[in-house]
Amino acid sequence: MSLTPVRANELPAMLTVDEALSQILADLTALAGESTELSESLGRVLAEDLVSDIDSPPHDKAMVDGYAVRVADLDQDQVELQVNEEITAGQVPSLEVTAGTASRVMTGAPVPEGTEAVVMVEQTELTEKDSGQTVRMPRQQLSVGINIMQRGTSMRRGDQVLAAGTTVRPIEIGLLAEIGRENVLCIPFPRVAVLSTGNELVAAGDLPGPGQIRNSNGPMLAAQVHRCQAEAIQLGIVRDDPQELGQLINTGLDADILVLSGGVSAGVLDLVPAALAAEGVDEVFHKVELKPGKPLWYGRSHRHGRQVHVFGLPGNPVSSLVCFELFVRPLMDSLAGRARIGMRCRQALLQSNFKQRGDRPTFHPAYYEDSESRVTVEPVRWQGSADQRALTRANCLAYFSAGQQEFPSGSAVPIYLFDA
Amino acid sequence: MSLTPVRANELPAMLTVDEALSQILADLTALAGESTELSESLGRVLAEDLVSDIDSPPHDKAMVDGYAVRVADLDQDQVELQVNEEITAGQVPSLEVTAGTASRVMTGAPVPEGTEAVVMVEQTELTEKDSGQTVRMPRQQLSVGINIMQRGTSMRRGDQVLAAGTTVRPIEIGLLAEIGRENVLCIPFPRVAVLSTGNELVAAGDLPGPGQIRNSNGPMLAAQVHRCQAEAIQLGIVRDDPQELGQLINTGLDADILVLSGGVSAGVLDLVPAALAAEGVDEVFHKVELKPGKPLWYGRSHRHGRQVHVFGLPGNPVSSLVCFELFVRPLMDSLAGRARIGMRCRQALLQSNFKQRGDRPTFHPAYYEDSESRVTVEPVRWQGSADQRALTRANCLAYFSAGQQEFPSGSAVPIYLFDA
Repeated sequence: MSLTPVRANELPAMLTVDEALSQILADLTALAGESTELSESLGRVLAEDLVSDIDSPPHDKAMVDGYAVRVADLDQDQVELQVNEEITAGQVPSLEVTAGTASRVMTGAPVPEGTEAVVMVEQTELTEKDSGQTVRMPRQQLSVGINIMQRGTSMRRGDQVLAAGTTVRPIEIGLLAEIGRENVLCIPFPRVAVLSTGNELVAAGDLPGPGQIRNSNGPMLAAQVHRCQAEAIQLGIVRDDPQELGQLINTGLDADILVLSGGVSAGVLDLVPAALAAEGVDEVFHKVELKPGKPLWYGRSHRHGRQVHVFGLPGNPVSSLVCFELFVRPLMDSLAGRARIGMRCRQALLQSNFKQRGDRPTFHPAYYEDSESRVTVEPVRWQGSADQRALTRANCLAYFSAGQQEFPSGSAVPIYLFDA
Repeated sequence: MSLTPVRANELPAMLTVDEALSQILADLTALAGESTELSESLGRVLAEDLVSDIDSPPHDKAMVDGYAVRVADLDQDQVELQVNEEITAGQVPSLEVTAGTASRVMTGAPVPEGTEAVVMVEQTELTEKDSGQTVRMPRQQLSVGINIMQRGTSMRRGDQVLAAGTTVRPIEIGLLAEIGRENVLCIPFPRVAVLSTGNELVAAGDLPGPGQIRNSNGPMLAAQVHRCQAEAIQLGIVRDDPQELGQLINTGLDADILVLSGGVSAGVLDLVPAALAAEGVDEVFHKVELKPGKPLWYGRSHRHGRQVHVFGLPGNPVSSLVCFELFVRPLMDSLAGRARIGMRCRQALLQSNFKQRGDRPTFHPAYYEDSESRVTVEPVRWQGSADQRALTRANCLAYFSAGQQEFPSGSAVPIYLFDA
């Protein structure tokens, strides 16, 4: 036996964050598209190209309230035109606009045959006469087409108006409604099951006894899932008992992703990897060169032809949160078909000197401010990975590479933004 | 009668966008806090200060799996200590660590009385002997406190850990669970009713007849409400009929905000302002110096001691979307108690020359890109406020002030970002 430090648990060499993420995203395809109610499609990615079934606008359309006229009639000393009819939105014109006549049209209404321009109502004066209504307006030289939007200007029937891969925002919902889609083929959000492990855990509603703490990871991780627009399946707390653990893992494997917290560090009661193996989950990696979050475990299982992704996150809340953001979230984004995955990254200038402790690259809770000209960042004081209170003062993670010990004030460092 | 342009509808002078927004936000207080389930609190603003009911950690706690020791014992030629017991997370120690002894502890477990430091398990070797277990480890000079997180380091019982006004993110959910809150006093999201008006409208599922178009504003506005994390109450489509309109307005006034689209421009069938007046809604303003969106109508009503905010948005989809983002959204944010309200604004450099047409300040659909060093923006080609297809190519609104006609490439212009 050697009395020099034994580091057997760190062999083989740990994966870097990028290598770990590559393995998670390897051979990945987005979930299969499914028919989705329009109101449920917000935030999802389209799984079909969409073609318009109509011309938009469907008719040459008045862009203002006013009078449909022929332009030659306006270029006269005295302009007074016979009013044919009034056409409101939803009606159709019955009379052609001919020389010496005008039709009153409302915004959005179809303009009659013969219309060359629409004169805004604010420029006109209507007069009742025995012979009917006439309208007067100032002499002007109008271009043909003024205040008219031509049929099909925005889109024509048969045009492809949205492509598969587009993320649905409110404006896309509007366009989908315009082309008559009450349902649309979308990639669903992945289903994510969350399970907290550990004999020390009690529910938030309970008062912890000696040696116990409340389960904060379960609610936090469920909220992180929710932030990615998916619904979390909350499986609660499980004791460090192989049988109980096996049953709940088995339930969790019905989801697309199973996230466990706790039970993956080196201790004798770290049963999670063994229990996962027993349920047919193959380990892809265990441990990542990262602080906080080194004990991260990741594996995959196949169920009914589906791939299920399984994460064993470290039990400390800050490690758990960081591992979710760095690894689970990009996977969720990828399965949901998103082009941009994971946290947004920016460069920021350190506000004060920072001393990197330890030999692993560190994602340190930090607070950034974005002014007109530059982004600055200040690491928050924290007491390590169990100090979730400190994290409430952070709005990002600042990245410090391993090795370099001192980062002087003014250094540019990458920051990874939390959602607002 | 004068034959010069009559502009009676534009008197008195129109409000600017800032003036209009000031009137909307005048005398505003956030909605009253209500007890909210922890899982429902995500994104809401806390309406109470929160105090911890526990010390965290609740005990001096092992930060690693390893052995709890006295430091003097480690500074010996040969370090071999008698193992007292093993303490896993959730257990409590029964024996004191005294000179010559060590207790095996798991991450998160309480360390025994007498513990001065924890040595990582990777540095140790356990041996079974007749006299019990002993553990060997390398000689080292350890500081007191290594690998121990002291009771109460993160927070102490009675500490205020979150203040009223804080927005609840996943990390706050974790902290709230840690301090035992299953329910928390939060400001609710406002309830927003959406009603589309116009004889020309048919539902998305119907094929429009001559002169008709599908109702795209209703679904789009509901999605915009949803994006602000609130639920939309969808009241559907109403004809240009005073009685029908009155009934649905009356229903909509049960919400905190009623958003109508259509029926506010100058035409004879623009019944909305009259119908709102008949239901006891007082006009605050009508028309804003803005393109698109000039005909915007805003008023307030009082119901059962509550203030109800009513918007009449122009019927054109792009106008509707822009007015929602510029006026309804900041109101929703304010009612929800948020400190930062409305769209995020940045400065961007124009990619090509832009010619401002018209005499109103313009919010033009545009596409921005954010590179390492600068933000650039390119207005998208659009055919005016009915062209919602063009808006699907935009990710922001670029602001062009009135008056100035040419904005050369490279000009800095404010941009207002859509949600991703």
